[in-house]
Amino acid sequence: MTTDQSPTPESRYARGARALAEIDGQAGEHVIAALSGIAPDFARYLIEFPFGDIYSRPGLDLRSREIATIAALTAMGNAAPQLKVHIEAGLNVGLSRDEITDVIMQMAVYAGFPAALNGLFAAKEVFAARVTA
Amino acid sequence: MTTDQSPTPESRYARGARALAEIDGQAGEHVIAALSGIAPDFARYLIEFPFGDIYSRPGLDLRSREIATIAALTAMGNAAPQLKVHIEAGLNVGLSRDEITDVIMQMAVYAGFPAALNGLFAAKEVFAARVTA
Amino acid sequence: MTTDQSPTPESRYARGARALAEIDGQAGEHVIAALSGIAPDFARYLIEFPFGDIYSRPGLDLRSREIATIAALTAMGNAAPQLKVHIEAGLNVGLSRDEITDVIMQMAVYAGFPAALNGLFAAKEVFAARVTA
Amino acid sequence: MTTDQSPTPESRYARGARALAEIDGQAGEHVIAALSGIAPDFARYLIEFPFGDIYSRPGLDLRSREIATIAALTAMGNAAPQLKVHIEAGLNVGLSRDEITDVIMQMAVYAGFPAALNGLFAAKEVFAARVTA
Amino acid sequence: MTTDQSPTPESRYARGARALAEIDGQAGEHVIAALSGIAPDFARYLIEFPFGDIYSRPGLDLRSREIATIAALTAMGNAAPQLKVHIEAGLNVGLSRDEITDVIMQMAVYAGFPAALNGLFAAKEVFAARVTA
Amino acid sequence: MTTDQSPTPESRYARGARALAEIDGQAGEHVIAALSGIAPDFARYLIEFPFGDIYSRPGLDLRSREIATIAALTAMGNAAPQLKVHIEAGLNVGLSRDEITDVIMQMAVYAGFPAALNGLFAAKEVFAARVTA
Repeated sequence: MTTDQSPTPESRYARGARALAEIDGQAGEHVIAALSGIAPDFARYLIEFPFGDIYSRPGLDLRSREIATIAALTAMGNAAPQLKVHIEAGLNVGLSRDEITDVIMQMAVYAGFPAALNGLFAAKEVFAARVTA
Repeated sequence: MTTDQSPTPESRYARGARALAEIDGQAGEHVIAALSGIAPDFARYLIEFPFGDIYSRPGLDLRSREIATIAALTAMGNAAPQLKVHIEAGLNVGLSRDEITDVIMQMAVYAGFPAALNGLFAAKEVFAARVTA
Repeated sequence: MTTDQSPTPESRYARGARALAEIDGQAGEHVIAALSGIAPDFARYLIEFPFGDIYSRPGLDLRSREIATIAALTAMGNAAPQLKVHIEAGLNVGLSRDEITDVIMQMAVYAGFPAALNGLFAAKEVFAARVTA
Repeated sequence: MTTDQSPTPESRYARGARALAEIDGQAGEHVIAALSGIAPDFARYLIEFPFGDIYSRPGLDLRSREIATIAALTAMGNAAPQLKVHIEAGLNVGLSRDEITDVIMQMAVYAGFPAALNGLFAAKEVFAARVTA
Repeated sequence: MTTDQSPTPESRYARGARALAEIDGQAGEHVIAALSGIAPDFARYLIEFPFGDIYSRPGLDLRSREIATIAALTAMGNAAPQLKVHIEAGLNVGLSRDEITDVIMQMAVYAGFPAALNGLFAAKEVFAARVTA
Repeated sequence: MTTDQSPTPESRYARGARALAEIDGQAGEHVIAALSGIAPDFARYLIEFPFGDIYSRPGLDLRSREIATIAALTAMGNAAPQLKVHIEAGLNVGLSRDEITDVIMQMAVYAGFPAALNGLFAAKEVFAARVTA
């Protein structure tokens, strides 16, 4: 069993907040703000575990991490808002539009054509909003 | 946005380990031990976030928390080992066998009869092992 | 195998209708009304099996049953209208807002952060509508 | 809202038991027997709602009903024992082996290739057991 | 292992386009058109594999195929747009409204009441649009 | 709508078989062989669409594609045999063990801890078999 080597909470929270800003940008801020009125502790958990612990691990670059997340959310097919946030995040960390649509198309093999179609239409919306922004 | 009020990591890890021991007993130890050879950091995350953060929150008693977990794992139907661990955990924190089977039967309404049947047969195994142990 | 001890259909239907009214209130009436134009028999099944059979069982109080249902619907993540009905139902049978959000937050452990986030935002909507109603 | 027109419980239970025997044969008896030691009431619910209410409805023949069930269980991918029971049931109500494998293959489109592959291998097992029985 | 007997791509694509038009009608055209701006290759895959390969197989009539698809999409519960397209497709290939609602109601047994309710309300929308069209 | 530019079926099948051999190695051969006795046409579809069409697309390297597949299959949690094949495939195309376990751990965020735990234990089995082979 691993001994307790977790960093101090300040650095873990700060590191998570930095990773969240880098990856999700404004969309991340909106999620944190939206949580303040319903479950503020959950905002802290979201910053600390996914972003402070997982995305901050050095073993996998953010490009690979966003491929994994876009694939999973497309395949699960029940988290459209988060899929859009991570399509945006994929662009933020350097994936091209074609790489993102390639990941989503591949999900037709593992989760079926409806999941891939809904993922592609989510990407279409995100890409279009980015052009006009 | 919440300010950083997370406890020191020692207490968070220690609190999680104590909660894990109370709730999952030996089954929890086995999971942590099994992780040591493949992903030791994940053992730490498992102790810190689910048990140190969530199960240690004061707002909901462990009995209610295990009802929630047994319901969710039965309904999802794709995590048989964890469902068995939490049926055992339900008994550990004071749920009766009939309360556990009532929660599982209710899942026929929300996730279908196969999910409930597979949950009931998981409970049957756990209860039988407990008798002979 | 159990012998046939089911109650008379009148009492089963009547018991289910009473349980539905107590638990789901107006939202339950709306579902039944909405079914009348598409599948009226299904309204009867909905009253008889989930409410006449399951929710009317004496072995588990309604508070525990709503914890189980909110947990399962949050974790499954594909039944937003029903999740909102049961967040409302949770309040109807005596759960506090904080208990409900605690159940939903716990689902981050079992079904991931997107499922918990979408559940929390559903709760935010239900709570806000209740304030203004 | 529909008025209470449900049949007497005797006929509902008896009709369900007859439908279960016709559709699932020995596999149905095994499920009912296995429930007796853990949740005997659930055996009654299983006979009454799925088989007494749904499968006994006159509007859809059993062949069509088993196509629907094999498709759904293949696509969901988390109820292997029930999928095998219904592949057997499909043969019992007159589907050919090729019709069953055609339904399962079609699920590659809607739920992905792994779901279809696991469904085909389940069918292979059921067909092989039937040859040697 | 099967030897390579796939037809020429012209006939496979043409056969798929013909099957798509027959089954999905205008809704199919809309999907193909919507893909042109985001992933045109995926339009080709959609025509070739699901429609050119699977729906064009002679072993199962289109009526049975749509029963399977409506059942699966209702049970999965995470692909509402595609479910509506296939409820429409079911009508196109000869299923009656009552047969379609019977398939959807049956999914309460395998995927729970919320999945069936959401499927029935999708059918209600499709049927209503058809009346007014 | 895309015009028909698909390659000749010979090259599509041959290209798929080559990609399958490169990615899945012996495990791929076993799947194809296992299909011969139940649904030989499905072996052809599996070679042609996932491997001949999707994995052969030039826009995304195989390393990225296996990250996507391992993420999706871990998150879905209902296709253990295929997850193991693709953990092996990840090693075949150049992912390190630590990169694979990092992808799987990340799924705790999107699909919950049970999905990640079951994925890690699948990886442990695959890695152990590789040592002793």
